[in-house]
Amino acid sequence: MNVTIIGLGLIGGSLALSLRQHGLAQHFIGVEASPVHARRALELGLVDAIETDLAAAVRRADLVVVAVPMDAMVAVLPLVLDATAPHQVVIDVGSTKGTLLAAVAAHSRRGRFVAVHPMAGTEYSGPDAATQGLFDGKTVVLCDTEHSDPDAVQLVEKLFHALPMRLLYLDAAAHDLHTAYVSHISHITSFALALTVLEKEKEEQRIFDLASGGFASTVRLAKSSPAMWVPIFRQNRLNVLDVLDEHLHQLQHLRDLLAREDYDGLTQQIQQANHIRKILP
Amino acid sequence: MNVTIIGLGLIGGSLALSLRQHGLAQHFIGVEASPVHARRALELGLVDAIETDLAAAVRRADLVVVAVPMDAMVAVLPLVLDATAPHQVVIDVGSTKGTLLAAVAAHSRRGRFVAVHPMAGTEYSGPDAATQGLFDGKTVVLCDTEHSDPDAVQLVEKLFHALPMRLLYLDAAAHDLHTAYVSHISHITSFALALTVLEKEKEEQRIFDLASGGFASTVRLAKSSPAMWVPIFRQNRLNVLDVLDEHLHQLQHLRDLLAREDYDGLTQQIQQANHIRKILP
Repeated sequence: MNVTIIGLGLIGGSLALSLRQHGLAQHFIGVEASPVHARRALELGLVDAIETDLAAAVRRADLVVVAVPMDAMVAVLPLVLDATAPHQVVIDVGSTKGTLLAAVAAHSRRGRFVAVHPMAGTEYSGPDAATQGLFDGKTVVLCDTEHSDPDAVQLVEKLFHALPMRLLYLDAAAHDLHTAYVSHISHITSFALALTVLEKEKEEQRIFDLASGGFASTVRLAKSSPAMWVPIFRQNRLNVLDVLDEHLHQLQHLRDLLAREDYDGLTQQIQQANHIRKILP
Repeated sequence: MNVTIIGLGLIGGSLALSLRQHGLAQHFIGVEASPVHARRALELGLVDAIETDLAAAVRRADLVVVAVPMDAMVAVLPLVLDATAPHQVVIDVGSTKGTLLAAVAAHSRRGRFVAVHPMAGTEYSGPDAATQGLFDGKTVVLCDTEHSDPDAVQLVEKLFHALPMRLLYLDAAAHDLHTAYVSHISHITSFALALTVLEKEKEEQRIFDLASGGFASTVRLAKSSPAMWVPIFRQNRLNVLDVLDEHLHQLQHLRDLLAREDYDGLTQQIQQANHIRKILP
């Protein structure tokens, strides 16, 4: 199978590595806006060739993977579908679905497209961040599959089962709601925590000296790129604002308990938070 | 060297394992309020014997390590010093220092005590959480060493250098300020994030299905025990409130930028947060 990957960053590059590792595809063509990243992806062996003409790259593939930030995704996916023939399959790997699916809802090739979100990533980006095994054992969400052709869905199911990933089916609205809760809010809190500590702790050497594993893990996502995350927050704005308001409320409640020295109340809240142990062992 | 460990949890147990592994001490006596934990610590080989009489356990040691939650620490440390002879050395491993050092400032054996905070831990507690190598390469803070006898400080320096750990010297007030910034606030944000997601996401299976590594690392500290953390927040209350107010301010600012769709402003804030990359590579 020939695969064209549009966007040779963390996710596109990791997917190329995983598909090749499992013998699911043999030839990989890359499309990449940054010449530096394109060259690097070739050096790293993520793809076998770079193609600068989008339509030509699409025509040469059995499967097209669009793996660009969400603002570019909304612009690029319709162009990819314009060039897609009836035997080809197109997937995205994007973190929001509502805006994207609305943008291609009326496209004549909508059936060839399957909306995919692998729930895996790191705080790094670009081709050097691509990692073999990134998706192993993780969940992949397939959205609104009733709008995709059955053979396209079957191919996608076969590939992601083989990586191996756990398949989960959600409609786009449910996907965007749940990812706001379980992924997007974590990034907001981590950015805010980094800003807090950078503001309060003027002695950077002290941060380096004193940062334990706990702090490092809480602030890790604050290394994530704004080019990726601002479009996600933009496209999922109402859900993110809703969960962010709840988070502000919870933080303010903890603050008030501490301010008025209600340590029994604080203990109860922490015991309640500890419930996450049962869900994420 | 004989070591008595008072409190056979994550930190006390891990320190016993590390001291033994590096040949720094041969015989370990444990004092532990929970009979279940005491028995388990023996089974795990964290200590060679359990002693129920505190003063007797102190008398049998060259080095006494007090590794109990901070509320118990303030009560137990004076009793330990009461039983300490002039050739013995006592350390704590506590996360706050101001209250504790004030509690023993006038004690006749104050010089035998060295205030120690190894900047290492996990979200787990109890003897089963003890891990060999927990302290390797981490920072250990020594506080107000000018109030300790030089030979006691030298013994502590020798032991922690050998683990090996990086030694950092701070006065108690600076310690409590910097740990509020770099450790305590992370726990507050993580507890609040868990409460947020548990409140918004009523479908627990969805959390399990969709939680990626990013969410798991941000919420990991929310598994931490209230028995350990409420006394820390209590003893470091003013510093924690100060940094928590800054954090609420930063989160509210991100919220306002998103609410009024100021994506350039949001990008700038994330770029500023990304600065943490240079400090924590």
